[in-house]
Amino acid sequence: MAAARGLVRVIGCSGVLPLCRQLPVWGRAARQPPSLPLTPCRAFSNNKIQVELDESSGIATMKFKSPPVNSLSLDFLTEFCISLEKLENDRACRAVIFTSAVPRVFSSGLDITEMCGKSTEHYATFWRAVQEMWLRLYSSNMMTVAAINGSSPAGGCLIALTCDYRIMVENPKFVIGLNETQLGIVAPFWFKDTFVNTVGHRIAERSLQLGSLHSASEAHKFGLVDELVPEEKLQEKTMAVVAQWLAIPDHARQLTKSMMRKAVLDRLVAHREEDIQNFVSFVSKESIQKSLRIYMEMLKKKKS
Amino acid sequence: MAAARGLVRVIGCSGVLPLCRQLPVWGRAARQPPSLPLTPCRAFSNNKIQVELDESSGIATMKFKSPPVNSLSLDFLTEFCISLEKLENDRACRAVIFTSAVPRVFSSGLDITEMCGKSTEHYATFWRAVQEMWLRLYSSNMMTVAAINGSSPAGGCLIALTCDYRIMVENPKFVIGLNETQLGIVAPFWFKDTFVNTVGHRIAERSLQLGSLHSASEAHKFGLVDELVPEEKLQEKTMAVVAQWLAIPDHARQLTKSMMRKAVLDRLVAHREEDIQNFVSFVSKESIQKSLRIYMEMLKKKKS
Amino acid sequence: MAAARGLVRVIGCSGVLPLCRQLPVWGRAARQPPSLPLTPCRAFSNNKIQVELDESSGIATMKFKSPPVNSLSLDFLTEFCISLEKLENDRACRAVIFTSAVPRVFSSGLDITEMCGKSTEHYATFWRAVQEMWLRLYSSNMMTVAAINGSSPAGGCLIALTCDYRIMVENPKFVIGLNETQLGIVAPFWFKDTFVNTVGHRIAERSLQLGSLHSASEAHKFGLVDELVPEEKLQEKTMAVVAQWLAIPDHARQLTKSMMRKAVLDRLVAHREEDIQNFVSFVSKESIQKSLRIYMEMLKKKKS
Repeated sequence: MAAARGLVRVIGCSGVLPLCRQLPVWGRAARQPPSLPLTPCRAFSNNKIQVELDESSGIATMKFKSPPVNSLSLDFLTEFCISLEKLENDRACRAVIFTSAVPRVFSSGLDITEMCGKSTEHYATFWRAVQEMWLRLYSSNMMTVAAINGSSPAGGCLIALTCDYRIMVENPKFVIGLNETQLGIVAPFWFKDTFVNTVGHRIAERSLQLGSLHSASEAHKFGLVDELVPEEKLQEKTMAVVAQWLAIPDHARQLTKSMMRKAVLDRLVAHREEDIQNFVSFVSKESIQKSLRIYMEMLKKKKS
Repeated sequence: MAAARGLVRVIGCSGVLPLCRQLPVWGRAARQPPSLPLTPCRAFSNNKIQVELDESSGIATMKFKSPPVNSLSLDFLTEFCISLEKLENDRACRAVIFTSAVPRVFSSGLDITEMCGKSTEHYATFWRAVQEMWLRLYSSNMMTVAAINGSSPAGGCLIALTCDYRIMVENPKFVIGLNETQLGIVAPFWFKDTFVNTVGHRIAERSLQLGSLHSASEAHKFGLVDELVPEEKLQEKTMAVVAQWLAIPDHARQLTKSMMRKAVLDRLVAHREEDIQNFVSFVSKESIQKSLRIYMEMLKKKKS
Repeated sequence: MAAARGLVRVIGCSGVLPLCRQLPVWGRAARQPPSLPLTPCRAFSNNKIQVELDESSGIATMKFKSPPVNSLSLDFLTEFCISLEKLENDRACRAVIFTSAVPRVFSSGLDITEMCGKSTEHYATFWRAVQEMWLRLYSSNMMTVAAINGSSPAGGCLIALTCDYRIMVENPKFVIGLNETQLGIVAPFWFKDTFVNTVGHRIAERSLQLGSLHSASEAHKFGLVDELVPEEKLQEKTMAVVAQWLAIPDHARQLTKSMMRKAVLDRLVAHREEDIQNFVSFVSKESIQKSLRIYMEMLKKKKS
């Protein structure tokens, strides 16, 4: 499927990327680029994600702005998928950078309130949206990079893993990992597949069982993130990485990406409804509901 | 199968493990805990393996005591499986530590006398017992750790690989590896699968073809063992690792483990009889019998 | 298939390899061994590859001598397969060393003139020859080692990856990698499978998308090559490696190799015609033909 789209949407390109003079700006010190008619920059903003596309470079930025912790609610996921699809269908867009507009958090992962005290229909709708986000992002024809400027547990880590490249700010307070077991829940098989594809079977097995949250520097050591940078260098470094990837002809890069990811994408596509049923029946268990309520109480106390 | 059992046998637990005051003691300086009625420690000992379960911590120890080298005879394997099943069915038991009561050897691997000069029926019975050991251990709901206090070639290495975690004494004389090819025989596909899951395809391919026995420090470098300790710290370190793993809710840890290992477990289950036939016909070859006789002669000379 | 051949062609051997006194000589300072009747060395040379077999050691050398860059033309591939088959069927031959007689280049990869401006029949014939080379080499019962004494992009890298072991001269000017995307083309799935088996999924995904050419020292760091040596030590080191591998009984080593590689070999065997059709239709596209013509022009300019 991804391969087929790759063949259809070939964008010829080679040589060094003509970097636009006025690059999209994001990160903690973010300033909005002025919307002068001469600037080749388009922006559309919804409630939870702000998107900017620099047409001259073909680089978009999706900035998560859903305080306090960019949790992946149904609304967030819906906006994410719509925004991604818009960019995917925009010939002018060749790469997307994902980053956070919220200090110290990239994304805290799935919104637990969507999994607690709701109807089974709601759980099913929510889970389908989580799957949709992953399917679109993992198979995207665009070059994707996570500029991880804060902690990134669980679903936040998944978004990072699903990109082509991960750059993380080397702040000792920022952690990343699939910590589901710590909450008494289990990462689904496609989270696991994405993790194994990134760090290998053994590290995934140990990290997933323990629900480990790794410091940026530890995550870098075993390949969960590709690069560490000081916060003030994040934008510059991310741009350099994107430029390196966009120097490759799009169609060749896209077909190669699709070849690498096809087996794992196909597995979820083949078992999608089953996976939703599994999630719904698991999360509906009283023991799991109790675990999640305890966890939410703990989070509330922590905040106050 | 493993997943199903996981769902049935959920043991709720979270937070820090309440470590019992009187932990099971093992290793070279092992002392038997007194069997006073106040001690929450149960022990059952057969001929070749001594088992202790500390009920307050939920941690059992299986200590191999089959001198001179803890070789995996049919009797040893039968005891191993019975003991493991007892613990698996005991709600009080959450983790098992495997270690040796024999100096300088964890386990020397499959007992070659079981593969030499016997009937095809015997070979089949023996091989089924080897499979059974691996199937039970790799799918165990309990947290399993190998405290490797001596050399661990071939089947000894397999036991270690099949656990959740491997800690090895950093003695330069202790070696570990799947050295089957050095004896003219071939590790079966499920030894290989377990090895690949632990160290990756390339290292497994090279190490298996060469039948390499690695020093503890080399094994640690490429991930065949997770941690090295001086002998006197082995027990303390092992307990700390078990405590870390048991801090995770059992059901989440178990389901995650099962998800990671299912594909490889299913492969043997699907091809079990075929694998037995392969082993029987391979080991019945005159050329293989000759290789094994030569090897046994060599071992005898070495001893005397 | 490979396994079956392994069973048929068992060559008993154990203990230390009796290294012949007069080893085959190759590398930049290569001298032809004198063809005296007393020398246990047979040589056959075609146009593009020179083959020497030292009967007393069982070690053959295939030296690529197709200047200027040992590109893999249809003629080269045909010679390669015929030479390899001769050695495979020769009971006296147990190992093959692949190296270059051309300075600074191991092999530049597939000959682009075979993919440009030719008939679809020619493309199909050419691609079948590329597949044949890989199928024979990856499943070879002989121990195979690449003594990489020059740059090794694309198909040159594939030959190296397909061997059992890779030793590379640590010259900062020598590069290695599957750089297909840089040319606007895509490495086929079995190039990818071989790469993943060697360096793991994540490194392969990144390196393949970027079409990276790695320096020898970088390639060594992530396992694309097993060892680095100064040029003057290449022959000595290669011989030592071969001796180590040949110390293992052939049949056990062969069966183990076959077990490790079977899944990936079977995949191409099952999809061989489909893969040819894919290649032919891809390379016949006008956009691809244009990319290749531009690339050839660039190469010509570079030379002059």
